[in-house]
Amino acid sequence: MKMNKNAVGRMIPETINGKPIIPFKGVGKHRPEGNRHAPKLSTCIDYPTNGDKRVATIKDALVQAGAKDGMTISTHHHFRNGDLVANEVFQACAELGLKDLIWFPSASFPCHAPIIEHLKNGVIHHIEGSMNGALGRFASHGKMRGTGVLRSHGGRYQSVQDGEVHIDIAVIAAPTADPFGNANGVTGSSACGLLGFALADSQYADNVIIVTDNCIPFPCIPWQIQGNYVDYVVEMEQIGIPEKIVSGTTQITKSPDRLFIAELTAKFCEVAGLIRDGFSFQAGAGGTSLSIGIFFGEIMRKLGIKARFARGGSNKYLVELLEEGLVEYILDGQTFDLEGVRSMRDNPRHQNTSPFTSYNYHGKGNFATMLDIVILGATEVDVNFNANVVTHSDGYLLHGIGGWQNCLFGRNVILPIPLFRDRIPVIRDEVTTICGPGELIDIIVTERGIAINPLRQDLIEATKDSGLPIKTIHELKAEAEAICGKAKAAEFEEKIIAAIKWVDGTVIDVVKQVKQS
Amino acid sequence: MKMNKNAVGRMIPETINGKPIIPFKGVGKHRPEGNRHAPKLSTCIDYPTNGDKRVATIKDALVQAGAKDGMTISTHHHFRNGDLVANEVFQACAELGLKDLIWFPSASFPCHAPIIEHLKNGVIHHIEGSMNGALGRFASHGKMRGTGVLRSHGGRYQSVQDGEVHIDIAVIAAPTADPFGNANGVTGSSACGLLGFALADSQYADNVIIVTDNCIPFPCIPWQIQGNYVDYVVEMEQIGIPEKIVSGTTQITKSPDRLFIAELTAKFCEVAGLIRDGFSFQAGAGGTSLSIGIFFGEIMRKLGIKARFARGGSNKYLVELLEEGLVEYILDGQTFDLEGVRSMRDNPRHQNTSPFTSYNYHGKGNFATMLDIVILGATEVDVNFNANVVTHSDGYLLHGIGGWQNCLFGRNVILPIPLFRDRIPVIRDEVTTICGPGELIDIIVTERGIAINPLRQDLIEATKDSGLPIKTIHELKAEAEAICGKAKAAEFEEKIIAAIKWVDGTVIDVVKQVKQS
Repeated sequence: MKMNKNAVGRMIPETINGKPIIPFKGVGKHRPEGNRHAPKLSTCIDYPTNGDKRVATIKDALVQAGAKDGMTISTHHHFRNGDLVANEVFQACAELGLKDLIWFPSASFPCHAPIIEHLKNGVIHHIEGSMNGALGRFASHGKMRGTGVLRSHGGRYQSVQDGEVHIDIAVIAAPTADPFGNANGVTGSSACGLLGFALADSQYADNVIIVTDNCIPFPCIPWQIQGNYVDYVVEMEQIGIPEKIVSGTTQITKSPDRLFIAELTAKFCEVAGLIRDGFSFQAGAGGTSLSIGIFFGEIMRKLGIKARFARGGSNKYLVELLEEGLVEYILDGQTFDLEGVRSMRDNPRHQNTSPFTSYNYHGKGNFATMLDIVILGATEVDVNFNANVVTHSDGYLLHGIGGWQNCLFGRNVILPIPLFRDRIPVIRDEVTTICGPGELIDIIVTERGIAINPLRQDLIEATKDSGLPIKTIHELKAEAEAICGKAKAAEFEEKIIAAIKWVDGTVIDVVKQVKQS
Repeated sequence: MKMNKNAVGRMIPETINGKPIIPFKGVGKHRPEGNRHAPKLSTCIDYPTNGDKRVATIKDALVQAGAKDGMTISTHHHFRNGDLVANEVFQACAELGLKDLIWFPSASFPCHAPIIEHLKNGVIHHIEGSMNGALGRFASHGKMRGTGVLRSHGGRYQSVQDGEVHIDIAVIAAPTADPFGNANGVTGSSACGLLGFALADSQYADNVIIVTDNCIPFPCIPWQIQGNYVDYVVEMEQIGIPEKIVSGTTQITKSPDRLFIAELTAKFCEVAGLIRDGFSFQAGAGGTSLSIGIFFGEIMRKLGIKARFARGGSNKYLVELLEEGLVEYILDGQTFDLEGVRSMRDNPRHQNTSPFTSYNYHGKGNFATMLDIVILGATEVDVNFNANVVTHSDGYLLHGIGGWQNCLFGRNVILPIPLFRDRIPVIRDEVTTICGPGELIDIIVTERGIAINPLRQDLIEATKDSGLPIKTIHELKAEAEAICGKAKAAEFEEKIIAAIKWVDGTVIDVVKQVKQS
């Protein structure tokens, strides 16, 4: 396979899964050509006039949708580790004798480990989407037939909109729906808040199947997914496990080091003048991010100011800021706890969003660029501020990209990270996998100091006599290495097991099979 | 020009405005081929990262959008007779020296009379959309260069979605918007309730311009129009005249005849068993329709039942039913008074809808088919129950189709109409213009009796010994003619001045130039 070097120096094959790909050209350098994907015209002639699109089972719906070998079948991950639908779908595919399918989830979770059987027995050819935990390990061992393709949430929308990924059948699990297919995530026993990750699927798939355990009479309001895009509705006993839908990630960190990093991050933002009246911020659901949000709240109270909006993943702490009036709006792509679900259901200022509004790079702008402060994580960072979120330093592919790449377009992107994990330095000469180019990453905050990207002279200037522990990234790296020694490079076989897409559909890096000792 | 007879016996030319057309084939007989219109891919590279898309004037926005001779420019009619934007747009086009434009409004009103000057001086070639009042008279006199094309609200969405009409520049007047282009109609001094008629325009036009007189900081919530579809935002001193936006149509009829028709209609629905617990109805904004809604309320109270949903045009009477709990949901395409606006803004059970959800015939079903009772008007009906809503018996084209054709797909379609207007019988051997085929029209209610379509033996059976004045349509016609004499056919020249589209994009009739005496 011929390989080409892309704009961040990584060698990229000419094709992935037999399709030609475009190597990453640099931020803002690739202009898409062509038109949005144009689904076939439908007609009301083919749909029941009483609006009742129900069929008995997922299997029946798959048959009616014309499921065939080699098709691409999509699911969403709003139920996170409590999803009961995706496994059911591929079990039905297996029973129908289907082969060589492509699974196109918006993300996968440990609960999807049964999919490994379908990868082994030929039902599924490969996965395009994050492969967390067991699935990632399976892929990293070179056992998946096709090559995984990882995209950001925005990149997933872009790929469907642009026709790069053609979804034959979309299966959308919905906590509440009506027989016409209108659906939402804010009510019902499996409430997950919203269904934005399934928006592209509903708009562009050839066949759309809603699966619900709470079918109510028309109209299901709000209709986060519109029934006018839906072909079939299936009722199931239970579509998700509520306590696993609301994940365990919304615990404030108890680690003194992480709490220190959180406080230092907040202090940096204050000192650098980023926390102003009407500012905006995004903080994720990890323990450190949660703590930063809480510190932001304290600073706003102290300064007597408020934020115009915050982006979720929402959780009870963010909801408290909203209800206290310190945040005017939450623009939310994913609720992480029941308080988030309740707030989105009841508070018009807690707005559900989608990868289309927030992240799609092939739209007429998106929300991600408008954020003043963005807090993100990373498994590794290199001395040029390039960062990795998908592989560990041992080379294993264990995480998805999520909205991470999309959020890099915020005005001030901060990675609060520990200087080392399990005695392996996080700052390296080169990251194992480049997921985001350094030019978009502004600040690294560690327990031993803060490194500001030299491209951001304004921030360096603003914080120079502040007493904050500002260091160069090389200084931080040297400190870590003095303690732990230099990080070793992971060892790989030649086989490419996954491609990492950039937000514009180009390929920024690939992941290879891990060499097993 | 070669003419072909269509499925309702009308002679249809092979082309309209130089484009081939498909003659109406019968209800549910035309299957669309091909795919939805696919707009060119956009990229965030071309949009400001701070999300501020504002330009100084409409003229600047038109220039930046690349306005050229012959382009199609669209506007919406949520401001009804209080619109200040459409005239401004074409004034700017005139100042730019543009020629031969096509105006594609979702409807036009008497306030748009200044457009006649642009039709005369060559700025506008022709109008595709309703031509009410002065514009209709101008067209009926054969003075418009091109042929008008009238579509239902659903047909307009369908034509844009299908790529039949390509909008080069959409101008969307918005009572509230943010600099990114998110916009709504529920707040601001020009509040009109919603912006659903502009949805197709936002999704499919090459260039989208938001014009607002209430620009607020991002985010504008709710975003009935999504900024991710928007190219430019223009601020204007005033975009609409509030007292004319809320039209004068929401007065209960004071005519004893009309009140009698309204009561008889409601009684028919009760006797025929159409008013059941969980039923649904649509009643328009005319005086008779309003009264029917009030009678429905009385019947529901008496029977101790409630309606699952009602479709608006909403008004204070419908809002009262919602707030009393007699109607569980209002699914609203157009608010007709301030109470409608308030209710849509504050009550989650008052849901804004669009021609996509409600009416699009080339979707995966739509809401219109799910209504139990639909109340509509007509200028004329013939003995085969075919009806006309666009021309008067003198041949003048004076009205648009609105949602009328789309609503014909409801389960029980009732036309409550007077037996004659200005001493001209409303029931005729043939209607001047066929807008809807008789097979879809179930009941005609007049002040002298009720005619049930013979296709509806179930209704004839259900009401036969009810004491209701059930007559044949021929009997009703004879009664009218005994009083007024037979209706004369209008006299026309040969020139076709407008085509009447059916919901599936085929042509059901044409309107010719009126012969002036």
